[in-house]
Amino acid sequence: MSDVALVKLGGSLITDKSKPFTEKMDVIERLVKEIHEAKKEGNLRIILGHGGGSYPHEPAKKYQTHKGMSGEESVKGLSLVQDAAARLNRIIVKALIDAGENAISVSPSSCTIAEDSRIKEWYTKPLEKYLEYRMLPVVYGDTGVDSKQGFCILSTEELFYHLSKKLNASKIIMCGKTDGVFTADPNTNPNAKHIPEITPKNYKEIEKFLTSSDGIDVTGGMLLKVKRAVDLAKDGIETHIVNGTKPGFLKRALLNEEVMKTVIKA
Amino acid sequence: MSDVALVKLGGSLITDKSKPFTEKMDVIERLVKEIHEAKKEGNLRIILGHGGGSYPHEPAKKYQTHKGMSGEESVKGLSLVQDAAARLNRIIVKALIDAGENAISVSPSSCTIAEDSRIKEWYTKPLEKYLEYRMLPVVYGDTGVDSKQGFCILSTEELFYHLSKKLNASKIIMCGKTDGVFTADPNTNPNAKHIPEITPKNYKEIEKFLTSSDGIDVTGGMLLKVKRAVDLAKDGIETHIVNGTKPGFLKRALLNEEVMKTVIKA
Repeated sequence: MSDVALVKLGGSLITDKSKPFTEKMDVIERLVKEIHEAKKEGNLRIILGHGGGSYPHEPAKKYQTHKGMSGEESVKGLSLVQDAAARLNRIIVKALIDAGENAISVSPSSCTIAEDSRIKEWYTKPLEKYLEYRMLPVVYGDTGVDSKQGFCILSTEELFYHLSKKLNASKIIMCGKTDGVFTADPNTNPNAKHIPEITPKNYKEIEKFLTSSDGIDVTGGMLLKVKRAVDLAKDGIETHIVNGTKPGFLKRALLNEEVMKTVIKA
Repeated sequence: MSDVALVKLGGSLITDKSKPFTEKMDVIERLVKEIHEAKKEGNLRIILGHGGGSYPHEPAKKYQTHKGMSGEESVKGLSLVQDAAARLNRIIVKALIDAGENAISVSPSSCTIAEDSRIKEWYTKPLEKYLEYRMLPVVYGDTGVDSKQGFCILSTEELFYHLSKKLNASKIIMCGKTDGVFTADPNTNPNAKHIPEITPKNYKEIEKFLTSSDGIDVTGGMLLKVKRAVDLAKDGIETHIVNGTKPGFLKRALLNEEVMKTVIKA
């Protein structure tokens, strides 16, 4: 088992989903600092991934990019969505560099081939070298070339699913807006109970609590996230879902310190 | 022979080399419009490449990125240079999209492996699909992973040398600040004579006129450009050097219309 950890910053955590092209710089600056500090203090190897949130959301929805090629207009959408995703990536990478991190982008739409929105090939040689150089490779929710439907949306979850298996990662940390998985929406339901651990064994009971995530992405929601994580758990890859809105939580999770979260493991 | 044309916009054509991070938006907007119109009118398949100019120049020079890995600081340089190159790329792609083109970035540092600054592997499947979709793939002078020296600078010339052979391109158009190759610097020497054609046969006589290009890049200059072009000419790939400062010249060259230039061919 390699010691690589994959860290995702959710799109709705780092952007303001109510307005197109609005990043939350305060949240981004805090989180990249936590990542930089944890990487240094723990001498960690990390791959960062981030969602697109309010950046690609509007063109992705308008042109239904996740459904693939359907004429000239959809190709225009591909162009717009790739650009929007890359623009947010530049903001994240710049923030990491400013925090002192040797961050380096890896653009999924430049080096993968998917089939029905699942990655079939990823030319990972450059990315693996960046890890070897102890840099911080940054991937992101992006468009992808798709051998079946022409093109697709590659969510960070899909990138991590493929990468964690290929690189034999030790764990995935999903950094979102909640303390993990609950029996109901904790923001609206006072009886919502936190679920600290999900395993392939208790998954069936928990599945019923998993409604779609809070809406901005066209890439699946919490149900899909947990389903994939349970799959990965069977391969020995743990997924930790932590709250990125709470200062220090991501750093603690990265350094294996006690923090409220949901862990999905075998 | 495939019908793909590779078009380079030189770094000192599209940026102001006297100041870091200064793009020439008027020049960029005119040139992307010429490319868009020519592509449409001629139903062409084009790959665009652009240099980095004043964007990556400063960190590339400071950290001597072209020499590869030499400790922690050089890795920081890799991060800074990749970011700077990608930032200019976003400006070019945005200008193309605004001109009506379905442009799509292909990031060389995400999908190539070099050896001593020469590309050994390029995972071109996504790029080839973008061409098939009649999009405009946009590559750019970038950093590269290098199996010998750790990393390197990949010039647009190097990208085009590899791509034109791999994709069996018909021609390369190098768009710079001169009308092609001269016997001396036409800006300072009134006796400078224009050279309309270079072939493997007359190359030896012409070599002596080729001094280094006007300075901003650490990637070779005119001598290397022409040397590589003569190599490619032997494989049947023509290189046309045209003046991008003169309105309409690039468009005419793309549409095979008469225009002052230097052609390098067998």
